[in-house]
Amino acid sequence: MTALVSVERLAINQITTKPWALDNAIRGYARHGVHAVAVWRDKLAELGQPAARRMLGDYGMRVVALTPVRVPVATDGDVQSAMDEILRAFDEATEIGAESLLMLAGPPMTMSPEKMKGVLAERLYALKQRAPSSLQLVIEPLHPIYAATVSPLNTLRDALDLCDQVEGLGVAVDVYNLSWDWDLERQIERAAGRLKGFHVSDWLRETTGDIRYDRGMMGDGCIDIRRIREWMDRAGYRDTIEVEIFSQNNWWRRDPDEVVRTCIERFHIYC
Amino acid sequence: MTALVSVERLAINQITTKPWALDNAIRGYARHGVHAVAVWRDKLAELGQPAARRMLGDYGMRVVALTPVRVPVATDGDVQSAMDEILRAFDEATEIGAESLLMLAGPPMTMSPEKMKGVLAERLYALKQRAPSSLQLVIEPLHPIYAATVSPLNTLRDALDLCDQVEGLGVAVDVYNLSWDWDLERQIERAAGRLKGFHVSDWLRETTGDIRYDRGMMGDGCIDIRRIREWMDRAGYRDTIEVEIFSQNNWWRRDPDEVVRTCIERFHIYC
Repeated sequence: MTALVSVERLAINQITTKPWALDNAIRGYARHGVHAVAVWRDKLAELGQPAARRMLGDYGMRVVALTPVRVPVATDGDVQSAMDEILRAFDEATEIGAESLLMLAGPPMTMSPEKMKGVLAERLYALKQRAPSSLQLVIEPLHPIYAATVSPLNTLRDALDLCDQVEGLGVAVDVYNLSWDWDLERQIERAAGRLKGFHVSDWLRETTGDIRYDRGMMGDGCIDIRRIREWMDRAGYRDTIEVEIFSQNNWWRRDPDEVVRTCIERFHIYC
Repeated sequence: MTALVSVERLAINQITTKPWALDNAIRGYARHGVHAVAVWRDKLAELGQPAARRMLGDYGMRVVALTPVRVPVATDGDVQSAMDEILRAFDEATEIGAESLLMLAGPPMTMSPEKMKGVLAERLYALKQRAPSSLQLVIEPLHPIYAATVSPLNTLRDALDLCDQVEGLGVAVDVYNLSWDWDLERQIERAAGRLKGFHVSDWLRETTGDIRYDRGMMGDGCIDIRRIREWMDRAGYRDTIEVEIFSQNNWWRRDPDEVVRTCIERFHIYC
């Protein structure tokens, strides 16, 4: 028998309820008994840090992550301003008491893997030196479909290779990005102690190609989420299970209260 | 300096000139000095084996591969008829003197990787026992985007794990499916002696989501094909470089003679 997880571990990434501004999301999640949120930077900018900080406190809401920033892999282009942008995110995270900052690698360019790895490791190391000690830096590998357009970091193995080089760096495991990988169980085991985020959603089998904005609700697709959650358990991960659903054609069009209710129901059944 | 490859190594997968029936393709490739073809089973069925065999002989055309068959990974469903279908492909390959048979794994189902690996290895082994000794069996990993819908075999590493278990089995490396993988160079090195096909095309960076039928011509996208070809060289691969372009919106709509001419030009520059 599989141990079920307590709903206290449920977090919601606010992109899941995209129609809600941050203040509505905080009130909405709290109304349904959810007290952990991943905050998007653009939504935070709309509300402003002081108001956000106050509301998060009033509603007893943990900010498990601030998201996203992009660590550049290019050696040309305006690297400095991309790095400065990340430093600004450090400040934002501190101001709202975010526990972690979620980082993507990219955008990509034509460059050899060794070169990209080297550049990324160097920049992540530099960022780690400048990050507040209270802020966990987390790198997230994306699905290989994004390799040419969004991020060239596409496996947990490669993300962990970076962690091997940058002490204190953590990884986020997103089932949508990683469930295809036959090596995933082994890499999650390897990630013990560095697992700093677990994102759930589902892969709609007949999705029509828009894999970026057409994610499914847990249970509506073909990912064996519980199995992956058990691998996370075995690797000692005890933190939040964060629902992150990009869904232009379905969930983003619904009443966010219904979305949150569905997240909670499905969480019990599939996570 | 990189050694250039002789155009004698150019093969064309006939899907690249989809509007041509097999007889037109044989005549067309020969007209442009191309003497190696990968034949699709549906196109072969239209022409019939005896006529195909005769024409291939008359035009001095090598059949580097017959394609595709699907090795089932399911344990339920009609496995027997899927396996029988592959035995029929053995006969077709023999009748037209095909040097290899290209096999995909799938369609996928919800099953653990270890289970899929075990089932696949077992079935590939059984097929190898029944295959004519003159016919090279080749397994091709597809891009992870196909994991839930077409094939769950998505990395060269996993394909080679299968080869480790089935003596004599070969792999095909398709740059479109595999170029995202930071582990590719190492796995190609590992594949030495088992590299039995090298497929080229290009990844259109701004492709709109139809990654199945919107491949680019070499040079029109962002894959460093020559770099991968050099890895193949170093691993001892000396056989054909096969252009395989699925292109519903572009190349399939053009005059196939123009397509073949372009393949040859681009082959010189990018392969």
